[in-house]
Amino acid sequence: MRAAVFNGPHSIEVAERPDPVVTAPTDAVVRVALSCVCGSDLWYYRGESPHGLGPIGHEFIGFVEEVGGAVNGVAPGDFVIAPFLYSDGTCAHCRAGVTSQCVAGRGFGNHGIDGGQGEAVRVPLAGSTLVAVPGAGHSDETMRSLLALSDVMCTGHHAAVSAGVREGSVVAVVGDGAVGLCAVLAAHRLGAGRIIALSRHPARQALARAFGATDIVAERGDAAISALLELTDGVGVDAALECVGTGESMATTLGIARPGSVVGVVGVPHGVENPIQIVVFRNIGLRGGVAPARAYIPELLDDVLGGRINPGRVFDFETDLDHIAEAYKAMDERRAIKSLVRIR
Amino acid sequence: MRAAVFNGPHSIEVAERPDPVVTAPTDAVVRVALSCVCGSDLWYYRGESPHGLGPIGHEFIGFVEEVGGAVNGVAPGDFVIAPFLYSDGTCAHCRAGVTSQCVAGRGFGNHGIDGGQGEAVRVPLAGSTLVAVPGAGHSDETMRSLLALSDVMCTGHHAAVSAGVREGSVVAVVGDGAVGLCAVLAAHRLGAGRIIALSRHPARQALARAFGATDIVAERGDAAISALLELTDGVGVDAALECVGTGESMATTLGIARPGSVVGVVGVPHGVENPIQIVVFRNIGLRGGVAPARAYIPELLDDVLGGRINPGRVFDFETDLDHIAEAYKAMDERRAIKSLVRIR
Repeated sequence: MRAAVFNGPHSIEVAERPDPVVTAPTDAVVRVALSCVCGSDLWYYRGESPHGLGPIGHEFIGFVEEVGGAVNGVAPGDFVIAPFLYSDGTCAHCRAGVTSQCVAGRGFGNHGIDGGQGEAVRVPLAGSTLVAVPGAGHSDETMRSLLALSDVMCTGHHAAVSAGVREGSVVAVVGDGAVGLCAVLAAHRLGAGRIIALSRHPARQALARAFGATDIVAERGDAAISALLELTDGVGVDAALECVGTGESMATTLGIARPGSVVGVVGVPHGVENPIQIVVFRNIGLRGGVAPARAYIPELLDDVLGGRINPGRVFDFETDLDHIAEAYKAMDERRAIKSLVRIR
Repeated sequence: MRAAVFNGPHSIEVAERPDPVVTAPTDAVVRVALSCVCGSDLWYYRGESPHGLGPIGHEFIGFVEEVGGAVNGVAPGDFVIAPFLYSDGTCAHCRAGVTSQCVAGRGFGNHGIDGGQGEAVRVPLAGSTLVAVPGAGHSDETMRSLLALSDVMCTGHHAAVSAGVREGSVVAVVGDGAVGLCAVLAAHRLGAGRIIALSRHPARQALARAFGATDIVAERGDAAISALLELTDGVGVDAALECVGTGESMATTLGIARPGSVVGVVGVPHGVENPIQIVVFRNIGLRGGVAPARAYIPELLDDVLGGRINPGRVFDFETDLDHIAEAYKAMDERRAIKSLVRIR
């Protein structure tokens, strides 16, 4: 089969790889339909995080081609969403809903595990990992939103859930990437009364508004903090969502959170200063991390199929496997919010 | 009047100070009955934190002597508990229950504000700060527990509340100082099913058990983490409470928290390493900080007066104002868990 491989910073190529086969009775082989590029892929693409050379990509949807003898819940022919980490569904962490810390789990697209940016994937622990999508003949719009459930929408949702967003909450979202935009959508879905999106990019502002943002703040850094505090009578927001991971974005997020609140943190941290003094002396909590996508997909899937949320709108660039390097480049240069890769 | 003053590290003296008077209509003057030394006082006592020279102490109970014209809720003759910070009760943070972030609030015993370790205290914003204790002729045992409500019991409670301790929770408390012991008591009061106290000191172990600890772990550092994980089938605890504030204690606490849980953090941080990677990659939240004692006192007071909790048992050393230097020394040398100072 053909699959994208990472050859080092700024070097993504398409190469021949062995066809995946069922090697353990809990495996399945999934033929990929749609894949995409994650904001977190840019860290290694830019050389800012280590990553093994080889297959990449951890977001995909597709058809089950073959299953091992111990796989229950999905069968050949099923159309499935793969969460970006596989999980056994039975360990203490999975049972507590924290599937992202499954004792047997790993991520796709690294450490010798097939990536989602290729024609097919061997999925370990397939029965407890893959989520079968009911129905058939879904529109392309729906398909794009199903793809968004493999990671980005679950991650935005995790930011909102971790920060305790509820009916009437005043929320601010720091980061206008795909995760931040999905966090806006998630906050809206959870009933937030006011959603302030920080963005200076017109197209992203427009999508934030379409996803439920009530206010846009275009300032950055200290000016953003001042603007947010002015919008909230000096109090700060009930739930500030950190969807970038840089030192500056975290400082902004902590600066606009009201005392007593919990900041939802889902950006992969790079250069974030030690926040412990703020946790203690400003009574601002931190919670979030790697989203337990497998636990979130069922409820979000209902809303996608019911037409109530449409997270696939974050995909504003599209290409095919042959041109996947362009998908990375468009995001790296911020020409694209998020790049979809049509595999078949 | 006479009051303890800080003259620099390891130098606590008793000096003549101006008699406090009502200077604003919202002030009261409180004649102090009992005061005590806080674990956080040891930081400046040891020269490890800055502190202004002058009056000290932020935990006291006593009788209202005089009130300004705008004070409602307390009157001369009332016996009151002073939370360690004063607060206006009306700002957005107070209304949200986060009285420790009151926009008009400050702490006692620094920055020119009278300390609790003296004969009398001018209490700003007295009507919204002081909590009148119903009844009269309380036993000495009850009085000691009322004193504990000014800070230490509220701080232990805050650790437990911040970590989400509830019926059946498996809790670990890192720190066998007075705050840690009160955190054990608070977790027990909130219905924790299992409470593991980390302590290697027999008297503190005994008090932890009396307060509700079901297990004691005497190991420290990595050995403590191994022991805790063994006690919890490798999962970690539902709620880990950090009641020390050092780098080692925080590392231990983060090491025993189960993924998805929130660590309750109330130790004043000294040398704590940046926990952001753990927050994100191990899905462990952090929450706590300066306890909103004023918000917590009413419910805890009910339980003290009802005989259901007895946090005053943390006081295992007692002296009078003249000998207050001994009170610091006993805690500094870890001969005392917490020192009570009988003022009158």
